[in-house]
Amino acid sequence: MADTRIAGIYGMRYGIEGMLKDELVDLRRQPAGTWSRLLHTPSAALGSCRYKLQEGDPERAIELLRRYNIHYLLYIGGNDSADTAHRLALAAQEQGYELQAISIPKTIDNDLPFTDHCPGYGSAARFIALATMDSSMNTKSIPWHYPVKVIETMGRDSGWLAASSALGKRDDDDPPHIILLPEKPFNTDHFLKQVEAVYRRMGYVIIVAAETIRDEQGKALGAAGQVGQDAFQHPLLSGAAQFLVELVIQRLKLRARFDKPGDLQRMASNSISATDRDEAYLVGQMGVQALLGGESDKMVTLVRHVDPNYYCTTGLVELARVANEQRLMPGEYLDADTMVTQAFFDYALPLIGDPLPHHAKLEKIRVEL
Amino acid sequence: MADTRIAGIYGMRYGIEGMLKDELVDLRRQPAGTWSRLLHTPSAALGSCRYKLQEGDPERAIELLRRYNIHYLLYIGGNDSADTAHRLALAAQEQGYELQAISIPKTIDNDLPFTDHCPGYGSAARFIALATMDSSMNTKSIPWHYPVKVIETMGRDSGWLAASSALGKRDDDDPPHIILLPEKPFNTDHFLKQVEAVYRRMGYVIIVAAETIRDEQGKALGAAGQVGQDAFQHPLLSGAAQFLVELVIQRLKLRARFDKPGDLQRMASNSISATDRDEAYLVGQMGVQALLGGESDKMVTLVRHVDPNYYCTTGLVELARVANEQRLMPGEYLDADTMVTQAFFDYALPLIGDPLPHHAKLEKIRVEL
Repeated sequence: MADTRIAGIYGMRYGIEGMLKDELVDLRRQPAGTWSRLLHTPSAALGSCRYKLQEGDPERAIELLRRYNIHYLLYIGGNDSADTAHRLALAAQEQGYELQAISIPKTIDNDLPFTDHCPGYGSAARFIALATMDSSMNTKSIPWHYPVKVIETMGRDSGWLAASSALGKRDDDDPPHIILLPEKPFNTDHFLKQVEAVYRRMGYVIIVAAETIRDEQGKALGAAGQVGQDAFQHPLLSGAAQFLVELVIQRLKLRARFDKPGDLQRMASNSISATDRDEAYLVGQMGVQALLGGESDKMVTLVRHVDPNYYCTTGLVELARVANEQRLMPGEYLDADTMVTQAFFDYALPLIGDPLPHHAKLEKIRVEL
Repeated sequence: MADTRIAGIYGMRYGIEGMLKDELVDLRRQPAGTWSRLLHTPSAALGSCRYKLQEGDPERAIELLRRYNIHYLLYIGGNDSADTAHRLALAAQEQGYELQAISIPKTIDNDLPFTDHCPGYGSAARFIALATMDSSMNTKSIPWHYPVKVIETMGRDSGWLAASSALGKRDDDDPPHIILLPEKPFNTDHFLKQVEAVYRRMGYVIIVAAETIRDEQGKALGAAGQVGQDAFQHPLLSGAAQFLVELVIQRLKLRARFDKPGDLQRMASNSISATDRDEAYLVGQMGVQALLGGESDKMVTLVRHVDPNYYCTTGLVELARVANEQRLMPGEYLDADTMVTQAFFDYALPLIGDPLPHHAKLEKIRVEL
């Protein structure tokens, strides 16, 4: 950092929630090796929060920034973080405190508007694509054992992550066979018909379901399953995958089970997309440049180019336009049924880094006597 | 294969179950690229079965072997597979058919006796160790959000896989904090006391539980949770992790959730231990050599050497001694409470290949004004 205006580099433990508790970390005084290790460490190492600013918080934050003589703020995260950065920028303005606040996009949910995609998504999408390829091998190795498998993904209200499970598909028969996205209301009868059709054709069915899928009344499938009780007579927390497994067992009399990679999909340090890592660095770098260039109250965006190969540059967008807006999957990425289109492959494949492996398939070539 | 006694190399789709259906695959006539791809393909690509030989099956199998003029048999798998190979060897002897049957060890459960360890375990252990390190980062990034996390592992009646979650631990505070193994009966009060103690000290608790843990009456924890009902008034399939999560929520009033990597732990193609892969090749190679050397009715074993570095050679053991015997974790690997000993680290670390990464930890060094 050559710019002499930057005297210290501080980190916010637990984001704004930590800052409001006066917990700033001196990033210049970290042990040797910290920065090189960060290259293969989930960004969670920086701390996180799920904190919505309360009345009085912005003023308190400005007071703290003033005490530490902080005039540049880079705030990393998704929609809520963009909102926080925006509100801090506004509060500084109101109080006549000189603050430049820039939001750095980062969410595996990939649901920020105005940016081609969000850092974090490429690596999580790589994990989900590979997990679907790998985990399905077990079902294929002995289909009659548990012919139906459900893999549950995260992704908030958008299907970007669930859709990425298709990225290892090289032909129609490859898993997944059914993808359930929050963008499309779940219909029980249609789902069961599909499962049955795939089962008849293939002998097994791989389903990927976003944890947030909802029925036609807008009710979360996991919640719909919560009429059950556990050993303590409390409602069991049934997730979407568990609900679907139960549905298949009861209605189709097929053995079914689920995988729920959970936090691993956003943390797997051996599924990092090199493209994603480079772009995460790029948006941080351009955030610093934007600050030094006098920008504030904006989010860095990724701008895609294809000429002929994929690469990204960055742009800036007003935070007032970003905050709390979700970008769902556009119609052109969804086919009429429960699969994604070629347009989605074109969009997502460059983001996940190195090409996915081809798994060996033994051809069923019978021995001739 | 230079030996002229080997005229063809056939593969059994779906193991003995496939063979009894006369489904042998000609391994010489596979498409180009198949063998190099196998290096990063889960071995499930070879097919699998869960089939116990029924009356008449061994005779039928010998009949088929005779038809194809097969006199060498390598049968890959765990305890049940060793039993199958043994019974085929006996049946051949009874019927005066010249058959040499050798069992090749392969099970992520690592529960075969007489071998130092089982191919497959090193890679699955690597996955579990890394998954525990990675997935815990999320909890650590915002401990008060879900302070208790349970990660459920496979491993049949043995705790080898659950124990491997400790391999990324560099100090006592690193996750996991509690490991629940099938070798130790589960005691609710003791467990809750432990969770509470770790929570008070750390602010969060990472628990790894084998899916097969049982209470002091020998009842599976998952089954104990099955008094609940789902939307169809059928018992909900509650696993060990879900049971523990419910227990923590109800009794300690702490927010808790679980990850269930499921099949991914035995299939993750990006968590392959190079040592494990080399040894899988070695036991196959030595199986062929044993056949050519006239051996039969034996299993290939891995024999550990440390002088000063770890490496393995192979041995052979009578299948009659192996079949259906499970090797649980020995007492010296278990400490008095719910952690593993240094002896277990010494045993398992060489098996998982490259050293596990060190994740960056930001030091909480406060900014000085």
